[in-house]
Amino acid sequence: MDRQQENKVIYLDHAATSWPKPPQVIEAVQHALLYDAANPGRGSHAMAVRASRILFNTRKKMAKLFHIGNPNDISFALNTTGALNQAIKGFLKPGDHVIATSVEHNSVRRPLEYLKRTAGIQVSYVETDAAGRLDPKQVEAAIISSTTLIVMNHSSNLLGSILPVAEVGEIARKHGVKLLVDAAQSAGVVDIDVGLLGIDMLAFPGHKGLLGPQGTGGLYIHPDLELEPFIHGGTGSQSEAIEQPLVRPDRYESGTQNTAGLAGLQAGVEYVLNETVQNIHTKEWTLTQQLMEKLQPISGLKLLGPDLGEPRTGIVAFVVEGVDSSEMGFILDQHYNIAVRTGYHCTPLAHIQAGTQGTGAVRASVGCFTTNDEVEAFAAAVKKIVNQYR
Amino acid sequence: MDRQQENKVIYLDHAATSWPKPPQVIEAVQHALLYDAANPGRGSHAMAVRASRILFNTRKKMAKLFHIGNPNDISFALNTTGALNQAIKGFLKPGDHVIATSVEHNSVRRPLEYLKRTAGIQVSYVETDAAGRLDPKQVEAAIISSTTLIVMNHSSNLLGSILPVAEVGEIARKHGVKLLVDAAQSAGVVDIDVGLLGIDMLAFPGHKGLLGPQGTGGLYIHPDLELEPFIHGGTGSQSEAIEQPLVRPDRYESGTQNTAGLAGLQAGVEYVLNETVQNIHTKEWTLTQQLMEKLQPISGLKLLGPDLGEPRTGIVAFVVEGVDSSEMGFILDQHYNIAVRTGYHCTPLAHIQAGTQGTGAVRASVGCFTTNDEVEAFAAAVKKIVNQYR
Repeated sequence: MDRQQENKVIYLDHAATSWPKPPQVIEAVQHALLYDAANPGRGSHAMAVRASRILFNTRKKMAKLFHIGNPNDISFALNTTGALNQAIKGFLKPGDHVIATSVEHNSVRRPLEYLKRTAGIQVSYVETDAAGRLDPKQVEAAIISSTTLIVMNHSSNLLGSILPVAEVGEIARKHGVKLLVDAAQSAGVVDIDVGLLGIDMLAFPGHKGLLGPQGTGGLYIHPDLELEPFIHGGTGSQSEAIEQPLVRPDRYESGTQNTAGLAGLQAGVEYVLNETVQNIHTKEWTLTQQLMEKLQPISGLKLLGPDLGEPRTGIVAFVVEGVDSSEMGFILDQHYNIAVRTGYHCTPLAHIQAGTQGTGAVRASVGCFTTNDEVEAFAAAVKKIVNQYR
Repeated sequence: MDRQQENKVIYLDHAATSWPKPPQVIEAVQHALLYDAANPGRGSHAMAVRASRILFNTRKKMAKLFHIGNPNDISFALNTTGALNQAIKGFLKPGDHVIATSVEHNSVRRPLEYLKRTAGIQVSYVETDAAGRLDPKQVEAAIISSTTLIVMNHSSNLLGSILPVAEVGEIARKHGVKLLVDAAQSAGVVDIDVGLLGIDMLAFPGHKGLLGPQGTGGLYIHPDLELEPFIHGGTGSQSEAIEQPLVRPDRYESGTQNTAGLAGLQAGVEYVLNETVQNIHTKEWTLTQQLMEKLQPISGLKLLGPDLGEPRTGIVAFVVEGVDSSEMGFILDQHYNIAVRTGYHCTPLAHIQAGTQGTGAVRASVGCFTTNDEVEAFAAAVKKIVNQYR
């Protein structure tokens, strides 16, 4: 895209935040700020109604993407972390046992550990293999009589592995356990049908695969599931009641929402729906394979995550013997204008699983605007840097 | 402003969300989305560093505005409600007694009532008078041995009254009680010096008097005060630890923040700093006086809040005998293209205090771009509507 050329950066940090955004996203944000960003759900004048409509239409598009029957079962949040806090803290009760995996992000692990410390929750982390592959049978084996919830990352933000949500969903249903999926790395790049996959709660970011601005994200909650609201406050509805209203999405959406950001998210989701998730996935997967093929022969370089030919999202992380990952990132940035993330990736158990707890890792992640040339240039830069170390 | 002309709307709903925004705000959002909105605090490449700098500079401007020594004592949130939830739920412990006022917004009252119901917190609401004036002595009289916190609205979102924060701050200090101030209606339009006013925690919106986009806001926490984090998750720092880091702002800021929105907020705060809070306050106060003078003679119309000549923020609410407030709002919108908020205002106790619990109220609220002509046109429209009812 033009802006990428203009900035001359090779941006391979899509797993953190996608960039650039489609022009429609930026136009939608600007249009909302200029004309529509009154207070949604708080007034009945024309501009407030337009603001409400932005939120509703964004919900509708998200519902279409994730095959959710009622858009109001989606509530918005500042980010995936906020959505996961709502899900985890709103669902679990003292005495509950919850199963998670060893590739959870800190956005799942820290709320769980907090509840373990303060609220009498038990947590089991089912281990993946070193590449982040999860055996659903091990999840089933971890279920005990007090298990009420399984939380799982759809795709590891370090390893790129795609976890078997459908299989775990089936196990969860069989045992009457609820399933919460962290779609931080999968929303927009892996097909998600909440009904087919047996997902009871789905937390998603707006600013990664859905191509929206930061400050957006949300949570789908199955219509039969009632959570304790995480954020209490004004909802614009039933304002005389001292408790949160039961009606959705108000129950889980207190205070003024990010109207302009959500207008941008709507445009981002539209873009994804037009391109189709399947095409974006194929494109990104092909780029990762190309990148892995180029990196693999570099001496001392060890690729993390699933093997060539296996499923993965757009993430390719690696370590190089004798080369500090942060220094690699620094040189890539300063000398090659290549943006990757290095060091530790807010997923300590996954680092242990991959054997990189002492070294961190370099993570390159592609997006739907990444080109073959960029991948080639990146691999060539890594090769050059490694050779200079030898 | 041009956009206001273009839209031909008379926008008197600034207490909900200010509009229009200064052009610099929209440009800052757009620039960040185009060039800088990588992940702040999560990477060391150039664009991530620019994103981090946006957050830091916004914090610096906010610190200047509120006379806060260390910008890192400010953490950002989706909105004031999120900040208030962090403050209230992160501070109060079972057995604590908290004092609030009868003009609290649901963003304060609902979290308090939730903790009362679930966590053994006691709450006393000190009554204001019908105009929303608070007598600090009554706050002092409500303090008991288990009182740990006073929460107060700086300005009632229904009545516009300005509450005596400095006096209450002194009382709080004298009794070793902490003070949390809800600056939803005062940030940017009433001078706030956290040290002078004795404020331990200050929750503020970005999208009202600070002229930033929705999806922004935050909480100042006194450096000596340690709260339990409300949102647990990834912070980009100490990522191997299972608990939130102690370092600020990371401790209270989990997940990806709203970089582009905060760039806009920075521009908004800059605008306020240049205009000065004092000048904006005087301008808005003068407009409210003009509006009250025009409305007062209308037969059957009763103004709410402080009398003419008394301090207030830009809020003028009223009821008209025999005229439904929602219908008034509907006619103002449909026939006059005037945007006000009507009905109930997420502050049930203030409605009781003002005697409008059965009627709701029409709330007009001015902003720093409101003109005399708009105020005149609004008052004339109200007069015409009321006459048609007679």
